[in-house]
Amino acid sequence: MRRSRYFLPTLRENPAEAQIASHRLMLRAGMIRQSSAGIYSWLPLGHRVLRKIEQVVREEMNAAGCQEILMPAIQPAELWEESGRYQDYGREMLRITDRHDRPMLFGPTHEEVVTDIFRQSVRSYRDLPQNLYQIQWKFRDELRPRFGIMRGREFYMKDNYSFDIDHAGAVRSYNKMFVAYLRTFARLGLTSIPMQAESGAIGGDYSHEFIVLAYTGESAVYCDRAWLDTDPLAMGIDYEADLQPIVDEWTRLYAATDDKHDPGACTVPEDALYQGRGIEVGHIFYFGTKYSKAMGATVTDPDGVEIAVEMGSYGIGVSRLAGAIIEASHDEAGIIWPEVAAPFKVGLINLRVGDSACDGACEALYARLAEAGVEVLYDDRDERAGVKFAEMELIGLPWQVTVGPRGVKSGTAELKARAGGEAEALSFESVSARLIGG
Amino acid sequence: MRRSRYFLPTLRENPAEAQIASHRLMLRAGMIRQSSAGIYSWLPLGHRVLRKIEQVVREEMNAAGCQEILMPAIQPAELWEESGRYQDYGREMLRITDRHDRPMLFGPTHEEVVTDIFRQSVRSYRDLPQNLYQIQWKFRDELRPRFGIMRGREFYMKDNYSFDIDHAGAVRSYNKMFVAYLRTFARLGLTSIPMQAESGAIGGDYSHEFIVLAYTGESAVYCDRAWLDTDPLAMGIDYEADLQPIVDEWTRLYAATDDKHDPGACTVPEDALYQGRGIEVGHIFYFGTKYSKAMGATVTDPDGVEIAVEMGSYGIGVSRLAGAIIEASHDEAGIIWPEVAAPFKVGLINLRVGDSACDGACEALYARLAEAGVEVLYDDRDERAGVKFAEMELIGLPWQVTVGPRGVKSGTAELKARAGGEAEALSFESVSARLIGG
Repeated sequence: MRRSRYFLPTLRENPAEAQIASHRLMLRAGMIRQSSAGIYSWLPLGHRVLRKIEQVVREEMNAAGCQEILMPAIQPAELWEESGRYQDYGREMLRITDRHDRPMLFGPTHEEVVTDIFRQSVRSYRDLPQNLYQIQWKFRDELRPRFGIMRGREFYMKDNYSFDIDHAGAVRSYNKMFVAYLRTFARLGLTSIPMQAESGAIGGDYSHEFIVLAYTGESAVYCDRAWLDTDPLAMGIDYEADLQPIVDEWTRLYAATDDKHDPGACTVPEDALYQGRGIEVGHIFYFGTKYSKAMGATVTDPDGVEIAVEMGSYGIGVSRLAGAIIEASHDEAGIIWPEVAAPFKVGLINLRVGDSACDGACEALYARLAEAGVEVLYDDRDERAGVKFAEMELIGLPWQVTVGPRGVKSGTAELKARAGGEAEALSFESVSARLIGG
Repeated sequence: MRRSRYFLPTLRENPAEAQIASHRLMLRAGMIRQSSAGIYSWLPLGHRVLRKIEQVVREEMNAAGCQEILMPAIQPAELWEESGRYQDYGREMLRITDRHDRPMLFGPTHEEVVTDIFRQSVRSYRDLPQNLYQIQWKFRDELRPRFGIMRGREFYMKDNYSFDIDHAGAVRSYNKMFVAYLRTFARLGLTSIPMQAESGAIGGDYSHEFIVLAYTGESAVYCDRAWLDTDPLAMGIDYEADLQPIVDEWTRLYAATDDKHDPGACTVPEDALYQGRGIEVGHIFYFGTKYSKAMGATVTDPDGVEIAVEMGSYGIGVSRLAGAIIEASHDEAGIIWPEVAAPFKVGLINLRVGDSACDGACEALYARLAEAGVEVLYDDRDERAGVKFAEMELIGLPWQVTVGPRGVKSGTAELKARAGGEAEALSFESVSARLIGG
């Protein structure tokens, strides 16, 4: 993508309304624009990040045997009457009346809709287990939306729902999601810590929150330092196997947010206790037959007896993850994207646009990288070097390549990792090889 | 994907509520389920189709130089007060009041939001032209939703918005979309005919509707038979070049829907006049400075003068296209997907599950095709052959491979195209080669 044509309205000043790093940097980097309180448009750079994150979430859901569907945003209130939640949900639910005066709502979650699909479609235990997910915009009418997309009203979620014939099956489904979540956040370059949680408005018996560590995170967390040394991607996972030992291993270590942490009761020695900050990005629930009983989602078991299915629900805040990654990975100059979530892998800076040698070298490198499928933002504008460097630091692409008249004369460009390290003068050949290879 | 695990709730009976082919077949093939009037969930098979169509639309938008963004579903009414449309839009607009009693709405279209983004972000003619698109769920509170997703309330649209410095630029943007639309529908296996149109509620000066031919379509169309022989994909398109001659060539031929067709005035000789049926799937508008003037979206021109930008808007009904393809391509037994929109390329039928030779041959072929990236739905259920064949015909995957005990003994499977033609007995090697190659 040529910067001269790219819709990237960056801001030089820190917006006054932004109190936290991700909000400030997403506005400044031209990723988002507020439309109304807690509601944002995602501009091209932000949209690319959202799609990258969504794709990682999707791949891990598919790997764990979930199937993607898409449920409507607008739900009929009558389903929520059936489950008994319509009155309980409170003012965070955006209630709507359609032109025929039917009560509807903008879904904050989809237990009712998915249970309705299930009861219309599945009759026999033979068709279980099932695990259906969607990635979709939801709405929660927050009293005081704040922190940009971190606590917005319209937000992008992956939510899924498991259906099993019995408790043992439900635990297997829960464990798969537990492991899939650890893998998902790790692939996004985040350290996530599952913490046993009370369930909130969704209701349930057993649940874990997944908190990712970020030094500007919203809540204080305490955990065994051993968490920081464990890598969920290092384990080979077979989703057909019994995952209980893995889940036990992961839940054995101490972890608590500040509202649960009791220094008196904590058995972790002080020097082994990590104290940091974190952001909730996922939540998994087992709630048994709460919805299936209320809504009549039953199957016949092997003996021909009708039984209510066991369910769980599982959520990841996809738009929130964009903010969480920034909170976990930024510096004074801007965002530092991990490659997997970066809007482009490479920023190519032409220091002297109009100079035929520089232009030619940049165009050749740009074409070469594009051909190899490497995503490049090529700053081909006639702007001062300082402006270009500052913008590249701000938007945080993992690799920067700088091409200037002196380097071109000796056949070199400078390659620098945004995450740190020195700029290296390399031949154009080596620059290509490094960026295409890695 | 193994059929035994796939969430594919097909129906044997024609649902009473479905009056048209696409509605009936999408319900029967387990692609969609109604949630409330005009509002549907997309189940795994339908979701895959939606994603395939969306991807073709996206690729053609990107090729035409558009940039993807994502605007919110919920918009503030005040933007529509600025444009003057809030009162005019009527009861199809879903109006909402949030918890702070602010009037909001579920966007039926996004001219106001995108104009707001533009005026916040762009100051100079140097940053033009711009063309921003999104693919997103919209809501129109139809008085009588019907025909399944063809006239639903919640629907998936690609909409984009062009911004130019002057009329000539706006025409260039319009022409790019004209060509991109022809290409998009052609890639989806559809014959589309652009028809000059009055603009509807969106308002404008100049517009074309794109109608795709489908023998069960909603409206009668009349056009020069020469339309049917022209292939938009045969032309090489350079979006940087002047597209006016191409647009002129395409608008030269006669075409009209029945409300416009006047047999007296039509100059096409009767034997050259095609009479068929069609479905509107796209609409492009040029409307000049209607929104930019009302909302103050101005840039400075080269002389430093503030001028309102020229705009156009362009829509494709992505969910509607799923229905339109089915209307254009089905038979008594079910859907006939073109490969580009098919949920899977291949349906693999094991006629004797449990027979080790059949199972082994199927597993080997399934693994081989998966490895080559060919999407296969493998019917590994212990069901009667008739049930399996009927379902494969119904869901309409482009290729069917049947593996039975007799064939396996002689080392062959049967390959058949859903679109017609005889089943061919081929070696497993040849089956793989044909499916991987083509």
